[in-house]
Amino acid sequence: MEFEYDGPSMKTEVPGPRSKELTKQLGEIQNVGAVHFFCNYEESRGNYLVDVDGNRMLDVYTQISSIPIGYNHPSLIKVMSNPNNMSAFVNRPALGIMPPENFPEKLAESLLSVAPSGMSRVQTMACGSCSNENAYKAMFIWYRNKERGHNIPSDEDMSSCMINQSPGCPDLSILSFMGGFHGRTMGCLATTHSKAIHKLDVPSFDWPIAPFPKLKYPLEEFTRENAQEEARCLEEVEDLIVQWRQKGRPVAGIVIEPIQAEGGDNHATPDFFKKLRNIARKHGSAFHVDEVQTGGGTTGKFWAHEHWGMDDPADIVSFSKKMLTGGFYHKDELQADKYPNLLSSARGQGTFCAIDIRDDATRNSIILKARDKGVLLGGCGDRSIRFRPALVFKEHHVHMFLNVFSDVLAEHN
Amino acid sequence: MEFEYDGPSMKTEVPGPRSKELTKQLGEIQNVGAVHFFCNYEESRGNYLVDVDGNRMLDVYTQISSIPIGYNHPSLIKVMSNPNNMSAFVNRPALGIMPPENFPEKLAESLLSVAPSGMSRVQTMACGSCSNENAYKAMFIWYRNKERGHNIPSDEDMSSCMINQSPGCPDLSILSFMGGFHGRTMGCLATTHSKAIHKLDVPSFDWPIAPFPKLKYPLEEFTRENAQEEARCLEEVEDLIVQWRQKGRPVAGIVIEPIQAEGGDNHATPDFFKKLRNIARKHGSAFHVDEVQTGGGTTGKFWAHEHWGMDDPADIVSFSKKMLTGGFYHKDELQADKYPNLLSSARGQGTFCAIDIRDDATRNSIILKARDKGVLLGGCGDRSIRFRPALVFKEHHVHMFLNVFSDVLAEHN
Repeated sequence: MEFEYDGPSMKTEVPGPRSKELTKQLGEIQNVGAVHFFCNYEESRGNYLVDVDGNRMLDVYTQISSIPIGYNHPSLIKVMSNPNNMSAFVNRPALGIMPPENFPEKLAESLLSVAPSGMSRVQTMACGSCSNENAYKAMFIWYRNKERGHNIPSDEDMSSCMINQSPGCPDLSILSFMGGFHGRTMGCLATTHSKAIHKLDVPSFDWPIAPFPKLKYPLEEFTRENAQEEARCLEEVEDLIVQWRQKGRPVAGIVIEPIQAEGGDNHATPDFFKKLRNIARKHGSAFHVDEVQTGGGTTGKFWAHEHWGMDDPADIVSFSKKMLTGGFYHKDELQADKYPNLLSSARGQGTFCAIDIRDDATRNSIILKARDKGVLLGGCGDRSIRFRPALVFKEHHVHMFLNVFSDVLAEHN
Repeated sequence: MEFEYDGPSMKTEVPGPRSKELTKQLGEIQNVGAVHFFCNYEESRGNYLVDVDGNRMLDVYTQISSIPIGYNHPSLIKVMSNPNNMSAFVNRPALGIMPPENFPEKLAESLLSVAPSGMSRVQTMACGSCSNENAYKAMFIWYRNKERGHNIPSDEDMSSCMINQSPGCPDLSILSFMGGFHGRTMGCLATTHSKAIHKLDVPSFDWPIAPFPKLKYPLEEFTRENAQEEARCLEEVEDLIVQWRQKGRPVAGIVIEPIQAEGGDNHATPDFFKKLRNIARKHGSAFHVDEVQTGGGTTGKFWAHEHWGMDDPADIVSFSKKMLTGGFYHKDELQADKYPNLLSSARGQGTFCAIDIRDDATRNSIILKARDKGVLLGGCGDRSIRFRPALVFKEHHVHMFLNVFSDVLAEHN
């Protein structure tokens, strides 16, 4: 860091007269009920935030935990001044349909280089709420594809979803925890239970809400009580999953923060999270770890869930704030609709598997192209490909096959 | 504009080989089902988009209508390079609690300077979906405050909302139109009915969906049929409002695009919108005009709804895309929770009105401060202020009073 102040320096009470004047001005234009004071961001440096009355404060709150390396860090200013990066703001690329040339490389060298364990894919978003909203949607789609056994919707799915009715808009739920905060758009808000003022007057979903452990401190004096408390919460989670399945609103996913931040900095032990992750697996629910506030190094690990010491900690990890963008990481399996127009009716027992292709001609072309790349496949029926590997087909053979098959599918999509 | 190309120039098919290669690379990282081709944004200029294979195309789609004045416009690059603006990206100000000094002024000279008729307030957001989500929330809060007669929630409101249940999370609805597109977060998505793929597999709300007129062209040949078609749709709107009220899900707001864009560029006449606005008023529903795609000059007026020629066209107007930010304008009345901790129990008949203040001391102080500023008020009861204007109290007296009263309230908030 080039320059930082040597300590706080207070000139007025806060908010000072200039802040009060500006609050009044802004109050003419929009709601100012939450405004603390106005800032001079240009004069702020490193760990010090300067307000409009010249007060300099040591900032231990950092815009609700969104400033990774302090105010006006020269490296960030340099990145932002790069014309290639500025182009993203001036030209507003619709990234989903017309990404810039460097997009795959940038993703690989930034977000993917710090991807959580087991996460091979990342989807960028503009903020934390959108990240969670879209993570929920990915879990719903994944769950429905599991239920269908494939990713081709029925005519009834297609027509009913247009009028908000099931089965197209299915009665699925996300299990969340009391005290959790996952954002304020309406999907996120249905899983947020930190303050009433966030939720009041907004219609919501009938989704299950489990208790989050209330640990007693110091931990070493309450080992037994805390273990009992965590066991109680986990039992309640399983009960809720069963209850909601019974009432026709299966739990497609569980969402949790590694430390409930907005809800009061509530912690739980790695043992709790390990068991919770196993419950998700047992009941076929996706496990979504919301690292919007905890991610980016703030807990001493890059991702807070690394403290759990698990190989397979989550199916989805969402992020924003300190990451200076938003989005979510996910496992390959959550890539639910990779080739919805090309593939359907995946089916099988053991190694005896098959999948249907769009049409006869495409099926035959895929088989030929795969052969050109060194993989032998057979067809069956009108438009199916059958898989009949030997019983000594090992995991690395699967990867070898999938690499080639993905390439070939991409050519036909 | 400093420089623009003199015409299209095609070097390869689109997507070309480089785009295909990059699509494959990106496919390893995220879903590429929607990618058309990759772009060289740095080389794009004005009305021309350049792709990574060197193809130069006249762009009549502009990132789904998000580029107001062409690619790499020098004025926009200049604005983005201004250190004062760059600060917003580097320092990520939490605008709701710690806005920068120039925020009121910037809002006034930019967004407020082009505010739609009747709209005095603006709330900024990061994207179109968030703009609509938050506009819906503002309508729900406004509607509930109307129902309660004040903006102080009951204990039951506060406790029930934490578990997603009514009355805290009320069974209110937003009426939308078939063919409408308002975004893809879960609140917006419940009002989006353009393509099944947007909605499939995502749980939704039981909200009413009205038909949007299907006009026949040329308009002059089908005057009678089109008028009948619009009348049919308006009748259906009223029926749905009544039905949903009867089933305990009152319509808090109606949302509509001036031209349904994503849904097929479907138009309706000014007469249709005028009558629809009147239906909203008649039934006490807020009227939200979604100008995310139509706003910013694209229809020949700055806001498409200006073509309707109404003095009071809407209660809320949302925007994004060409506006290069997101947000919504709204009327004063939609500012539902201006002083929730200070004021309650607004009540009255005719000019015989009163409001309760937080406590006795604050009430007395407000009365004194108002007198210092030249307005005489009286108290009554423990903590009420009574309004007893003469019967010759005119609208300009009301404004005079409200200006002083607002100032005094701001000092006590």
